[in-house]
Amino acid sequence: MDQYLDKKEGDKNFPPSYIVIKFNRKIKHETAKWLVEKITKEKKKGGAELLVRCHPSGNDSNLIIHVSAHNKALLGLAEDLEVRKRDKHGNLREFTMDELSEFTDVDGMDEFLTTSEKQTIVRHEIENIRALSNESNIMGYPHYSLYEGQSIMMACLYYGIIKKMYPLHDEEAVRKLGARWYKRLFEQQPYDEIRVYFGESVALYFQFIGFYTISLIGPTLLGFLQMVVDPGAVAVFSILNVVCATLFLEFWRRKCSELAYLWGTISMTSFDEPRPNFRGTMGVDAVTGKLLPQAPRFKTHIKMYCVSLPLVFVCMIGAFIIMLLSFWVEDQLRTIPNTPMWIIYAPSVIYAGLIYAMNMVYRRFANFLTEWENHRTQSQFDRHRVTKLVLFEFVNNFMSLFYIAFIIQDMDLLRYQLATLLIVLQAINNIQEAILPFVLRCYSNKFASLRSKSSSSSLDSKKTDIKKLIEAIGVKELDPEDSRIKQAITEGMMEQYDDPYDDYLEMFVQFGYVYLFSAVYPMAAFWAVFNNVIEIRCDAFKLCRVYQRPIARKVKDTGAWQRAFQALSTLSVVTNCALLSLNPALKSQGHDLKPETWFLIFVGLEHLLLGCRQIIHYAIPDKPEWVRLALARGNYKAKQALKLQIEKRHLLQQ
Amino acid sequence: MDQYLDKKEGDKNFPPSYIVIKFNRKIKHETAKWLVEKITKEKKKGGAELLVRCHPSGNDSNLIIHVSAHNKALLGLAEDLEVRKRDKHGNLREFTMDELSEFTDVDGMDEFLTTSEKQTIVRHEIENIRALSNESNIMGYPHYSLYEGQSIMMACLYYGIIKKMYPLHDEEAVRKLGARWYKRLFEQQPYDEIRVYFGESVALYFQFIGFYTISLIGPTLLGFLQMVVDPGAVAVFSILNVVCATLFLEFWRRKCSELAYLWGTISMTSFDEPRPNFRGTMGVDAVTGKLLPQAPRFKTHIKMYCVSLPLVFVCMIGAFIIMLLSFWVEDQLRTIPNTPMWIIYAPSVIYAGLIYAMNMVYRRFANFLTEWENHRTQSQFDRHRVTKLVLFEFVNNFMSLFYIAFIIQDMDLLRYQLATLLIVLQAINNIQEAILPFVLRCYSNKFASLRSKSSSSSLDSKKTDIKKLIEAIGVKELDPEDSRIKQAITEGMMEQYDDPYDDYLEMFVQFGYVYLFSAVYPMAAFWAVFNNVIEIRCDAFKLCRVYQRPIARKVKDTGAWQRAFQALSTLSVVTNCALLSLNPALKSQGHDLKPETWFLIFVGLEHLLLGCRQIIHYAIPDKPEWVRLALARGNYKAKQALKLQIEKRHLLQQ
Repeated sequence: MDQYLDKKEGDKNFPPSYIVIKFNRKIKHETAKWLVEKITKEKKKGGAELLVRCHPSGNDSNLIIHVSAHNKALLGLAEDLEVRKRDKHGNLREFTMDELSEFTDVDGMDEFLTTSEKQTIVRHEIENIRALSNESNIMGYPHYSLYEGQSIMMACLYYGIIKKMYPLHDEEAVRKLGARWYKRLFEQQPYDEIRVYFGESVALYFQFIGFYTISLIGPTLLGFLQMVVDPGAVAVFSILNVVCATLFLEFWRRKCSELAYLWGTISMTSFDEPRPNFRGTMGVDAVTGKLLPQAPRFKTHIKMYCVSLPLVFVCMIGAFIIMLLSFWVEDQLRTIPNTPMWIIYAPSVIYAGLIYAMNMVYRRFANFLTEWENHRTQSQFDRHRVTKLVLFEFVNNFMSLFYIAFIIQDMDLLRYQLATLLIVLQAINNIQEAILPFVLRCYSNKFASLRSKSSSSSLDSKKTDIKKLIEAIGVKELDPEDSRIKQAITEGMMEQYDDPYDDYLEMFVQFGYVYLFSAVYPMAAFWAVFNNVIEIRCDAFKLCRVYQRPIARKVKDTGAWQRAFQALSTLSVVTNCALLSLNPALKSQGHDLKPETWFLIFVGLEHLLLGCRQIIHYAIPDKPEWVRLALARGNYKAKQALKLQIEKRHLLQQ
Repeated sequence: MDQYLDKKEGDKNFPPSYIVIKFNRKIKHETAKWLVEKITKEKKKGGAELLVRCHPSGNDSNLIIHVSAHNKALLGLAEDLEVRKRDKHGNLREFTMDELSEFTDVDGMDEFLTTSEKQTIVRHEIENIRALSNESNIMGYPHYSLYEGQSIMMACLYYGIIKKMYPLHDEEAVRKLGARWYKRLFEQQPYDEIRVYFGESVALYFQFIGFYTISLIGPTLLGFLQMVVDPGAVAVFSILNVVCATLFLEFWRRKCSELAYLWGTISMTSFDEPRPNFRGTMGVDAVTGKLLPQAPRFKTHIKMYCVSLPLVFVCMIGAFIIMLLSFWVEDQLRTIPNTPMWIIYAPSVIYAGLIYAMNMVYRRFANFLTEWENHRTQSQFDRHRVTKLVLFEFVNNFMSLFYIAFIIQDMDLLRYQLATLLIVLQAINNIQEAILPFVLRCYSNKFASLRSKSSSSSLDSKKTDIKKLIEAIGVKELDPEDSRIKQAITEGMMEQYDDPYDDYLEMFVQFGYVYLFSAVYPMAAFWAVFNNVIEIRCDAFKLCRVYQRPIARKVKDTGAWQRAFQALSTLSVVTNCALLSLNPALKSQGHDLKPETWFLIFVGLEHLLLGCRQIIHYAIPDKPEWVRLALARGNYKAKQALKLQIEKRHLLQQ
């Protein structure tokens, strides 16, 4: 089918590239041929029925192919994937080819699916090329075994046969988006456009940070107020802060469900289509009746609770002990007279370095464990991966502050630390994650072009290699003048943006700094707002200009982050009450009380606040009334349709 | 239609009575006529299209009518009410008249709907006779105003024009059920039969008490074990008890969702049909598009949070103060020398009497408030009513024990009190609620028959009144030999069983006794099991023989009770840790610790346990996998049917 269309439409008419695949330099000819054939072959033969062109030899030392599809094919796939669209009456529903005219005019057909939707569809099709029963290993690599139903491309990525697989930016669209987004510091973010371009996952993060920053205005005002009133009133402010945190999380949950309804992702469940790396034997799906990989859920549970959970706890305790050690060594050094300052601070510096290294190792470990647990859907996978990472990050980011607050009980040091972390480190972070990579890339591009000129002789031999490879595969080349070639190479060198994990983590840590110690450092909220205003635009810039375009991903909520933030907010009740009980201004008021009574007051206050949180949680419904109503209406309609269908079938049988 | 059927089938063929209505003795003729006409009139004229017969004059001094319907009419109504039945393939789904043959054979048609279903349908129809726009008051009573859409029968019940409305027992079925239920002390309860006869609400209560009693076996064994080991191990036992309580509640939630799925009630929402007493203007329902009373939900919220909640708290504080007063007066009396014992105990006795009186008043108050809040569905109404009642009962039942445990700190007195409450009071309770009313009724029946013979002259005049009334209405009389006449009169004198509120309350109080103070009185669980084994059979006997047959009610969970039990179980963590910190055996082990440190240990333990509870809560899913799968499958099928329907409609338009 591919070849037929090619001849008819000519080479210049190759539709926009949706996914670019960069193969390993050393790929065997037979493997490359096999993979490209898989992508282009008919669906019933186990292929993906997509269109493929490769870079002409001489542009790069690796084989790079562009994958695309005709608009009509994409529409058909979108129907299969149950893409939801708003019809002409404004109802969001799964569109079907038969009633395409209900959704768009003939003129708008090409733009009916957004580029991010098209990229998602193509990527989905590539990922869903699964090993057939007679394919027990990757062609040409007998050691790289495959099981029936495994995603071949994901296996090749894992083994390094495919180096990269990424979608391309739409340069005009990203320029337009950027102008309305990272170039305007104080304006509302263009949420709809972000979603259309980057997909739900990224859009949700920016919605979250926007919502969170606005919710910080309350604590900021409280912080300023606190500076001018009597220090004995600190208890009232702490309580108000705790209430702020609780309300923010409750209302964010509601906001999430609103967004999920509007985006059509609210009905996502763990029974949705499995992620490409999900391992299982092919079988009939219990919900849809389609042929999909199946694996029993209880195995995942056993792995999670019997292996992963204990291991994660061991790692957490390990990190905790290392922290204690660094404090202990520092203490020991201080007791030795005449120790130079740089030696005293050495343990802290070494500890900071260790944290960085441990984080790198632990992240790979967590990824490995979660992959091994074999979660069915991407949401489940993300949730359990994030849970593991967050637990570890919690120890690294907060334990030393807890040590200062409750063991050393040095509130000035705590305040100093918080100020440093919130003001200096966050600023450095922003520079490091958005500005620095951009500058570096500009320089490295220049450097690379210089080097490539100097070493043209070695390139020549590679050129011939590539030429042979292309001939062996028999795939057509793109026009050498095609601008996509340069774009693909440039964007291929950019860093990959997997998911907003790091961005959420930054907010998580900041949330902790602001709320856990608000009784000691009420100005934290102000600095958090200050940072976030810049952070939003930095992150936006980073996504638009620094990173490869991420593939759009559907999400219905912030998943594990919601719980992580909730846990922090619960913990903030405990820490703030504990800090209040240590507060000198309050202590001077209650000096005639017995220590037990003094203690009891704050334990009582804490329990009261925890109780109030629970009541607030019950009193505020998860979903706004209109979302519940709309869902109920949808369910009712569907149920009626099913009833009618059964009735009709019965009448026909009679 | 009614009259037509009557003539054809004759009087003897009046189908079984489903609902009996007893009017006020002083009802005006025109009102009685109006009401009976409403019941029999055609639906499109605002009636219920049901069949009616009255008792022949001379049996009772009130007008009593029997309401019934033909089987075919009932089937039609069942379809409208979306009654779910298992079809021949074993699938539970809403049946339709067109495919009746898919569900039952022609022979089984009469028994296809159970009597409780038929009673529910008939009662639903009677309750749904709603005031039309031109009916602004009850006929004959200009002061008793009606608003459009109000349930006329509920208004008549409220104003006392109708004295009672109750379904009749099916004597053969109840005898069979009883033989398998209350006559077998140690056998599994016949849950399915209970549901068929009494409906979901009652069946769920018996499932609950069964499940709860089994869950108590763990704590019972722990209690026995605790008696033989070192008293210092009490902390371990307390922790295990807390874990037991948590697991019980988590697994009960799962069990609930299983039952709700099997019973077809799992999809009940607050958008279901409103309860008869729901006040609102008639309007198009946003979900179903049917004409139903509508009222904005926010008004209910405002009433709940701004009026009811503060009032309930005031009542709770009032009850608390009265408790404190009774303790204070008792203390004062003890300080006066030579006070006789009966005077010292007088405050306790008066307090007990006051609790009883307050409960009676408060219950009416809570009913009034909840009715005034105007909740849409019966489940919502029950939930908010139960919440109000439970809060008050909590103060009455537990506050004095808290006072003894934590203010007086007299553990022997606490243990003595708990033993009395669990052993003596529960036994008395069982006798009082099942055996006593039964005995009393037997006697009062004899007494009544004696009295009725003696005062036959006054009855004669009443007889003539009734005769005139019957003539005025023009309703046909039942055959004087019909056994239903005597049955209706006998059951009319029985007490009404509204809902299992009192039964749940007993379990709630017992749950508190067992778990709140398990660190002090570990034998509580044993006595609770001992009581429950009897309680189950007493409650069964009570339902079958002592009370009027309750109308079957659909429920999907234990509603407010789940939260109430959860709150108690959370509180039990706090109380047990507090009791442990006061435990002399433990104190002797930690006598060299500072009081703050000692205190800190138990606060830490408490937080740890609360954290574990939260983790258990997250780790155990609300619904078992198979229920989630079955629901997902159902949703998927319905969604596909809807998609097909829309597509077909689109094709037809083309």
